[in-house]
Order: sequence, then structure tokens, then C-alpha cells
Amino acid sequence: MTESKEPLVKEIAPQSEDFSAWYLDVVRKAELADYSPVKGCMVIRPYGYAIWELIQKDLDARFKATGHVNAYFPLFIPESLLTKEADHVEGFAPEVAWVTRGGTEELEERLAIRPTSEVIIGTMYSKWLQSWRDLPILINQWANVVRWEKVTRPFLRTTEFLWQEGHTAHETAEEAKEETLKILGVYKAFAQDVLAMPVHDGPKSDAEKFAGASKTYSIEALMGDCRALQAGTSHDLGQNFAKAFDIQFQGRDKTLQHAYTTSWGVSTRLIGGVIMTHGDDSGLILPPKVAPYQVVIVPIPRGNWQETVLPKAREIRDALTAAGVRVMLDDRDAYTPGWKYAEWEMRGVPVRLEIGPKDIEKAQVMLARRDTREKMSASMETVVPFVTDLLEAIQKNLFERALKFREEHTTSASEWAEFQKLMEGRPGFVVAPWCGSGTCEAEVKAETQATIRNVPFSAPPAQGACIKCGAPAVAMAYFAKAY
Amino acid sequence: MTESKEPLVKEIAPQSEDFSAWYLDVVRKAELADYSPVKGCMVIRPYGYAIWELIQKDLDARFKATGHVNAYFPLFIPESLLTKEADHVEGFAPEVAWVTRGGTEELEERLAIRPTSEVIIGTMYSKWLQSWRDLPILINQWANVVRWEKVTRPFLRTTEFLWQEGHTAHETAEEAKEETLKILGVYKAFAQDVLAMPVHDGPKSDAEKFAGASKTYSIEALMGDCRALQAGTSHDLGQNFAKAFDIQFQGRDKTLQHAYTTSWGVSTRLIGGVIMTHGDDSGLILPPKVAPYQVVIVPIPRGNWQETVLPKAREIRDALTAAGVRVMLDDRDAYTPGWKYAEWEMRGVPVRLEIGPKDIEKAQVMLARRDTREKMSASMETVVPFVTDLLEAIQKNLFERALKFREEHTTSASEWAEFQKLMEGRPGFVVAPWCGSGTCEAEVKAETQATIRNVPFSAPPAQGACIKCGAPAVAMAYFAKAY
Repeated sequence: MTESKEPLVKEIAPQSEDFSAWYLDVVRKAELADYSPVKGCMVIRPYGYAIWELIQKDLDARFKATGHVNAYFPLFIPESLLTKEADHVEGFAPEVAWVTRGGTEELEERLAIRPTSEVIIGTMYSKWLQSWRDLPILINQWANVVRWEKVTRPFLRTTEFLWQEGHTAHETAEEAKEETLKILGVYKAFAQDVLAMPVHDGPKSDAEKFAGASKTYSIEALMGDCRALQAGTSHDLGQNFAKAFDIQFQGRDKTLQHAYTTSWGVSTRLIGGVIMTHGDDSGLILPPKVAPYQVVIVPIPRGNWQETVLPKAREIRDALTAAGVRVMLDDRDAYTPGWKYAEWEMRGVPVRLEIGPKDIEKAQVMLARRDTREKMSASMETVVPFVTDLLEAIQKNLFERALKFREEHTTSASEWAEFQKLMEGRPGFVVAPWCGSGTCEAEVKAETQATIRNVPFSAPPAQGACIKCGAPAVAMAYFAKAY
Repeated sequence: MTESKEPLVKEIAPQSEDFSAWYLDVVRKAELADYSPVKGCMVIRPYGYAIWELIQKDLDARFKATGHVNAYFPLFIPESLLTKEADHVEGFAPEVAWVTRGGTEELEERLAIRPTSEVIIGTMYSKWLQSWRDLPILINQWANVVRWEKVTRPFLRTTEFLWQEGHTAHETAEEAKEETLKILGVYKAFAQDVLAMPVHDGPKSDAEKFAGASKTYSIEALMGDCRALQAGTSHDLGQNFAKAFDIQFQGRDKTLQHAYTTSWGVSTRLIGGVIMTHGDDSGLILPPKVAPYQVVIVPIPRGNWQETVLPKAREIRDALTAAGVRVMLDDRDAYTPGWKYAEWEMRGVPVRLEIGPKDIEKAQVMLARRDTREKMSASMETVVPFVTDLLEAIQKNLFERALKFREEHTTSASEWAEFQKLMEGRPGFVVAPWCGSGTCEAEVKAETQATIRNVPFSAPPAQGACIKCGAPAVAMAYFAKAY
């Protein structure tokens, strides 16, 4: 007996009515990911994984250009190691998956599946590091990690996810801070230039920092439903892990010193960010730089199209491919052009190129932009530069549109009543004076669900009285309800 | 208190005296991998991981060129799924690591960490597949897998390892077989052209096939100690998994049919194969195509070298890099040229380029090949084409040398006594007539430790009587002691 098969409907919930249902529909119907038989774990389908491959390729080149190399550390962490850094274990223990049995034997010491790898990597750095000459150590790892989550959502929060985690060791506190901020800059540039996703970069509050870090910095984006998304973090770990894991070296002055370490990561969550930053009621809208197909060519099947239209369509595909454009020629004859238009629109392909017998007569093609839905014709002769220019324009427009959206959904509040009123709805970012105390931060969260996302480097200078307690502000914090 | 640090010695055991010790020394001292605090798990260090990245990049392009796409499936497999295919679970259950606890709760059903992913991927294919029009499904995954091994050795057999696993579904038995063999061909071409590692490609015996497969094909290489290494496998799974996991589709004739599936994989074991195929008493020898650094430039620090030699060395580095050559300029002043020669020789860099004040006077550089230790000079003007030609020559020579070694260590036996005598030593491959029975195969193994590696497509036609039982031979099997 076969299981019931999923019907072929492509309808998705309207974004404006139910953003959450819209998101799940887009993820599944655009074939980005699917639920798996394992609770909280998703399958990343080829179309979604192709986006991840484009993210990886671009980010990996940026890491290498800044002197980092890749390596691979074990999936398992013995329990005795995990518990060495007190704050770290307190933060992560509640979400660890434990291996207690290997083959036919019960394990003497249970093994954590890495929720993050500071512990195992720190242990190795302790072994490898001898002298200040060995510093800095600049290693990144592309890996899967597991965090036992109670409530999951594809890409945004899953029990297992894919990410990269950089782990570096430095001679001085200054160098570690410089590294932390350098990577934050890499993340920001990547998010904005490649994902077309505007982000605020700056320090998190102490309450929101990574378990075991001295200081955590983040990039924070604003989604289409006005909730914020933490899209990447970079942690200055000070000497906390170096002290817990004996990461020591002989310094220039011959004394034994603890290194300063950092860690930083982004994950498949970025794909969720792309979906929720750019998508609309028709489905996904992909920025050209991370679109598996940047152009879909739909031949119009009229007359002897297979002898006339199809060869021309192939020629255009080949010319675009040669120019470095990722092209899908959808020549399936089981589907109508109208069906294909809707399908590829839903799957977010930036440019649709239609070509039929009439276009061939006129030596032109018809083009449709996914972002603005604008339609235009281009002469066959200049189709390649026309399309590459168009892709650049779409990439730029998506960023500008998202930036405008963020600006339209950023407000200020200087009074608690005003702040509360704003937070009854979905205001996006609310910039408000903050005294720097964790108590005020916690009270704001308890009463409004809003958290301090970060204090962007670009935030206005502190002024006025804390929104919560009225003490003098030390920073203008960016509050939002967040994923 | 700090842990004791590893001394800086670089000595390695002579290959001829103790191949196994030599291997472990090379792995650690060339900084390819290191032991970790987790039993049976290694750390792949940046230099080793860079080899894996080159392997991945080349293989991934070959998979994509043959129509495959990448995806990602969960690390966990619920126990009830794992047990659905009887042979499969019997083969893998003894080596599974089990997660029994997530966060603070005991799991109702324990989760296997994937030893391979037929089960979880088959479950998804069952969900996705509707019609013959959806076939073939051609998906690959780059992932970590875990097999609870009792005896481990870096790269060759570790509890956790990295690999790629292809999983495909087809309409007919013929198409599945064609896919299985196509991938075997991809593996063979890759092993020979990129790793410079000659391999025999052909079917494994029934006793050695993958748990659950109808037919397993392999590529088998010969290591420097005359033991064989299974370097990749491609499995025709028939309808076994399709029946166990309901992978069904509506056929062209409207009836519901089971698909035919395949799976295939190579792993970080290939790095072990490269080490043991090409290395010598001085350490690693890397084929240029998988060498993280193809050329190391060692400037000779005489006179005002930093004003004269170093700028020229940088110029050559930049010219080679621009020509697509991977170059390391070792300008560290804490080490002597002699120390650097030994270091990079041990780490297997194919070409060393020396440049000193005298060379600058003569407008030349000195070059040394790692494979033959030949030294030569090249004029500075033509150094780029000279080096690129040299790299090609080294790649070719390594393959030919390995092929010659294999030929010198391949013998035939037609009598049992002769076979036994040969197997007292390390004969490499012994080609012998075999009746096709598993009983004979098992007896040969019990008495000599030799196993049938495979029956290469290039094997001579069957003739004579089975080496063990004397019945008419059905194949000339390639026996060897193996890793």
C-alpha cells in the first residue's frame, strides 16, 4: 500500500492575511524544503540547497580573502568537555541531543552532538598552540549542528541545521576584537550585497549575548511581517574559553599566556531571511545573486515551434550561460506557458524570457521582471547584455525596496506609553533610549514581547531618559519583536 | 595547568620498515589530521581539508555534468524506519550510534545517526514521486556519517567520516544499471585523472556487496604496502528499497510500479588512498591536481634579500597565481631554507622553487620535483609555462609510476598451493579462477586473509578451475589483502 501523495495544487496563503502560513506554503510549494519523518528536522530540497550552495560559495571566498582556512572537527563532544566552561554549558545543555549507545554497547561517557563547536575546537587549539608565532589561528568549519528545539520552523529554527562556524585565536584582546568586527563587516556586506537584505550591525545587550562570550555582535534584518531576524552573530570570547580549555602560548616575553578567541556563524536561517524579506503574494522573489536560475526561458508552443522556436531558445540559453547567467529552459511539453509562468513566478526566478513564433519574426524576446512584474521586449541581438543589466537592476531594486520598507517601519519612542502603544501592533524597529540595565530590558520584553535586537553602530547618540526606568540613557537601542 | 605540548620533531618512520607507522606519522606530521578527544574520531586539519575541498570541487562538477543536483537530508533516522529493509538493518545495526535523549527528555523512539541515508532518502522519494514523468530523480548529498567502528585509522576508517552519497530513482531496471555504471565510470576517471591512482573497476562478489543491494560495483586501488583499498562503490539496489519504502509511481501504462534505485559514494578515505599510493620515506607526495599548494617558493636569505630576492619571489608568486597555480611563498624568517625544504617535501608539495641573489643575477630560478627529486633551472622569463608543464608532467608521472607498481604487484595463480604461497607475503593483486561460490570465497579468506576485491571489467576471460574447489571457473577474480 502506498502512502497518500501530496496534491499538485500550488496555491499559497496570502501574505497579508497570514504571513506564517504564507511562509510555510512558499517553503514547501517552491520546493525549498520539506518536512521529514524526524521531528523538527527538515529536508533541504535541491532548489533550496542550490541557494545554500550559492551562499556558501560567496561567503567561503570572503572568508578565504580575509585569511581564513577550512577544517573539520568531530560531530561528538564528550560530556566532560562540554561542561568545562560554566556559562557555555548552562546555555546549551538544555538543547543538547545525547548519544548514549554505540553499536551494541552502552557508552561509559555520553556524547553530545555539537550544538556549536567552541569546546571541541578549543581543545584542539590547546594542543596545537605553542608560541605567539603560531597566532593568529583562523579556522572556519562548514557543518551540521543540532539543538533540541521545542518549536521549529523550516530554515528559521530546526533541530538540525547547516551553518559555518569560524573559530579564531589571537595574541591580544585588540586583535580578537578586530577579528570579531571584521567578520561582522563581512556578514553585513554579504547580507546587503548578495542577499539584498539590509541589516543593522552592532553589539547585542549582555542578556542576549552568546553563552560564554564577552561580547556578541549581530546583524539584524527586518522581515516582511515587521518582525526582526537575527541573521548572523560574531562573538568576542575574551579569554573565557582559553582559560576553560587551556589555550595557552609562550608570549613574546617568554611568559605563558592565554589566547583571546572569537567565534562567528551564519546558517541556513539566511534562506528564511531571503524568503521573508523579498517574497510577495505570488510566492518567492529571489535576488539574482542567490537565484539557482536567474532566467527561465519559456518557449511558446505554436505551429512548428520545435523546429523554429526551440532551437532559438536553446541558442539564447547557451549565449546567456556563456555569459555566466544561470538559465533554465523549460521545454516540458506537458505544461502550458501560463502554468509555467505561475510556477516560476512562485519559485522566485528573477527574469522570465518568453519566445514564440511572432517574436522570432520580429527578432525579439519578451521579458518579465519578477520584482516589479514589468514587461518589456529586447532585441535578440542585444539580449545578453540586456538581461545581465536587468539582473543587476533587480538586485539593486530588491535591496532598495527592502531598505525603504525598513525605513518606513522604523519609529522612535521617548515615552513608555508611546512605546507600549507602538508594540501593540507590528511597528518594525522602535528606536528608544535605554539605560543599559538588564532589568529594564527584561521588563520591556515581559510587557511587550519586544527585545533589544542590537545597538547599531549607526544608531543616533544616546539622549533622553530610559524608556522603562527614566534613568539617563546610555544608548539608543533598536527594539523589535523578533523570530 | 597546561597540557603537555607535542614536540616539534618531524621525523617519520621509514616506509619500508613499518608502513603503518609511516602512514600515521605522515598523517600527523604533514598536519593532514589529528586525533581528537572523541574515540575513533579525527580532526581534519586545514591542510588535509584543503585536499578534501579540491576533491569535492572536482567530483561535484562531474556529478552536476551528469545531471545530478545536491540536497540535504536529516542526520537522524528513527529506529522504526531503519528496520524496514531487512538486509540493510542487519548490515548496519551493529555499527549505529544511537541518540536516546534530547535536551531534558528521554526519547520515545531512539534515533540512529545515519550510517548511510538510503532509508531517510527513500522515505522522502516515496513522498515526492508520483508519475513516471518525475523520473529519474538524481540527487547527491555531501554529508557526515557515523559508523561505530572498533578499530580506526585516520581517513581509512573512522567513526565519523565525510562523504558524498548519491541516491537515484529510475523507471526501469536498465536505467538503474546504466546509472550505477555511469557513476562507477565517473569514480574511475576521477581516481585516475585527479588522484593519479590507478583502479580496477568491476562488480564485487555477492558476499561483499552493500547491505540491501542487488549488485555492488567498486573501484579498487593498490597501496604502497601492496594491500588493496576499496576507493568507491556504486550500488544497483534493484527494487529492494523501493519495496521496503513504497517508492512507487504511476507508469506510462497507468499501473502503479516500484522504482529502481541506486546509491553510490566516496569518502575522505580517498585522502588515505592518495597518501598510501604516492608517498615515500620523506613523507607525502601529492598529485598536483589535489595539492593545496602546487608550488612552494623558498627565497634564499642572503645579503639584502628582502629588497632584492623577496620582491622577485612575490612577482613570481603573483604570475603563477594569475596562471591558476596554487602557490605558497614561504617567507618566514624564523626558519632556514634547509628546514623549509624538508618541511614542504614532507608535506608533499609537487614543486619547490628556490630563488636567491645568484639566481637573480642569472635571471633564473631553481626548481625541484618532489616525485623524482630532479633539480633543474628555468629562466625567469619562461618560469610560468615551465612550471605549468612541470605540474602536468608530475601528475602524469605519478599515475604511470603507480600503474607500473600495480603491474609489478599483480600475479596469477592457477593452483591452490601456489595461491597460498603467494599470500604468505604481500603479493598485491592475485588473479585467479573462481567458481563464483561464496563458500570458496569464504574459505580463501579464512585461510589466507585475502578477499575478492572485484572482478574487473578488464579481467581476462574465465578459464581453468576454481582455485579453491576445482569446479569450472566463472570469472577471474582479483584477490588481495585489503584495508
